[in-house]
Amino acid sequence: MQQIKALIFDVFGTLVDWRTSIAREAGQALAPLGLTVDGLAFADAWRAQYQPAMEEVRAGRIPFCKLDRLHRRNLDVVLADFGLNAVDETVRQRLNLAWHRLDAWPDVSAGLHALRRHYRLAPCSNGNISLMVDLARRNDFPWDAILGADVARDYKPKPAVYLAAADAFDLRPDEVMMVAAHSSDLAAAAAVGLRTAFIARPDEYGPGLGESAATVPVDVSAGNLVELAETLGTTRSSSC
Amino acid sequence: MQQIKALIFDVFGTLVDWRTSIAREAGQALAPLGLTVDGLAFADAWRAQYQPAMEEVRAGRIPFCKLDRLHRRNLDVVLADFGLNAVDETVRQRLNLAWHRLDAWPDVSAGLHALRRHYRLAPCSNGNISLMVDLARRNDFPWDAILGADVARDYKPKPAVYLAAADAFDLRPDEVMMVAAHSSDLAAAAAVGLRTAFIARPDEYGPGLGESAATVPVDVSAGNLVELAETLGTTRSSSC
Repeated sequence: MQQIKALIFDVFGTLVDWRTSIAREAGQALAPLGLTVDGLAFADAWRAQYQPAMEEVRAGRIPFCKLDRLHRRNLDVVLADFGLNAVDETVRQRLNLAWHRLDAWPDVSAGLHALRRHYRLAPCSNGNISLMVDLARRNDFPWDAILGADVARDYKPKPAVYLAAADAFDLRPDEVMMVAAHSSDLAAAAAVGLRTAFIARPDEYGPGLGESAATVPVDVSAGNLVELAETLGTTRSSSC
Repeated sequence: MQQIKALIFDVFGTLVDWRTSIAREAGQALAPLGLTVDGLAFADAWRAQYQPAMEEVRAGRIPFCKLDRLHRRNLDVVLADFGLNAVDETVRQRLNLAWHRLDAWPDVSAGLHALRRHYRLAPCSNGNISLMVDLARRNDFPWDAILGADVARDYKPKPAVYLAAADAFDLRPDEVMMVAAHSSDLAAAAAVGLRTAFIARPDEYGPGLGESAATVPVDVSAGNLVELAETLGTTRSSSC
């Protein structure tokens, strides 16, 4: 564990509560139009389109494009499914950027600031750079760099995304720890040699509907990022 | 000017004093071997290899690789030219990372912190991501993201590097201002639609041997980054 020099983070679900944030944003976007929607159902439906859209890129059926564009394509589908075709272009554009206005889980900023004393930090998300920048400014995430899909030009869990992040920091994969609330993400990172930390987010998809424990072998598990900082701090006291 | 939403920065020469820093690092690296060198001459010789090496990439004669690798190839040439072939591999590796240990001009950190209140900030340098991260940690540069050559997979002044930086922030070129102490860099940025700010670094290549005034049309000129923040602050008082 002492050889770890950088931590890279999944963001949606691990650092930010996309579900209640998107529900709030959907309500706020539609209210001025006199429209109402079940915000949580809308968030779940939008998120359900996420993996299939990225799979188009991962499988090579469409060229890489930033996540904002996939989110927009998915938004149009979901609005239609919810009978909201009347929503105009201006509102669609603003609502699509709801993913730039997600709120962090309460432990994240403090945890990242503590971890930053010992490790280089970057998101390794499928979100695009501008989306990551906006979330960082909103929630005080002290990143050293923005890594992830835009730098690798492909989407997790493709190996290139994790390996591009390690390469950007000039580190071997086993000098980098992937931090995520999703076992599938950690399994993919471990498969290409990264160390792994699981963070429990048991309410990500609604109360009791997130992962409360990893279903794959991981190097570390913690209940939140402050706990992770405490756990890693006991194994590494020098500054990076 | 009020439409500017992000500032992107040249780094070597504009933000950091590479010449005296490299001179210091060369001396420190060689002293334990009982070797001495004219540090400033060594720095100038190493820097003289910089543009020709990148031109190999820009012209397509070799694939893109990160600047650390070009610096290392150039270092081996310069060590030979200075009769220092005896320098061993371990010392070469450490000396090559001297570019990660450059000191900022004294105005830079304060200027960037002031500018960050109103603009998104990123380096748009030919230096690689890890190099930019190390300089930021050493000198307290509060970047939102690390943009530049590694993200564009090509070297300035190729248009793709400036345009990739604007695209990463989801901005039109005319919403982004390139900040540099080199007229050639600003001319290339302006040619693809960016706004430009010239910073005087009259001592970059030695006393009186840097650019003290732009030789091309620019939108703004300033003596340092604190002055730039004051100039831009008068035209834009709202937070971003």
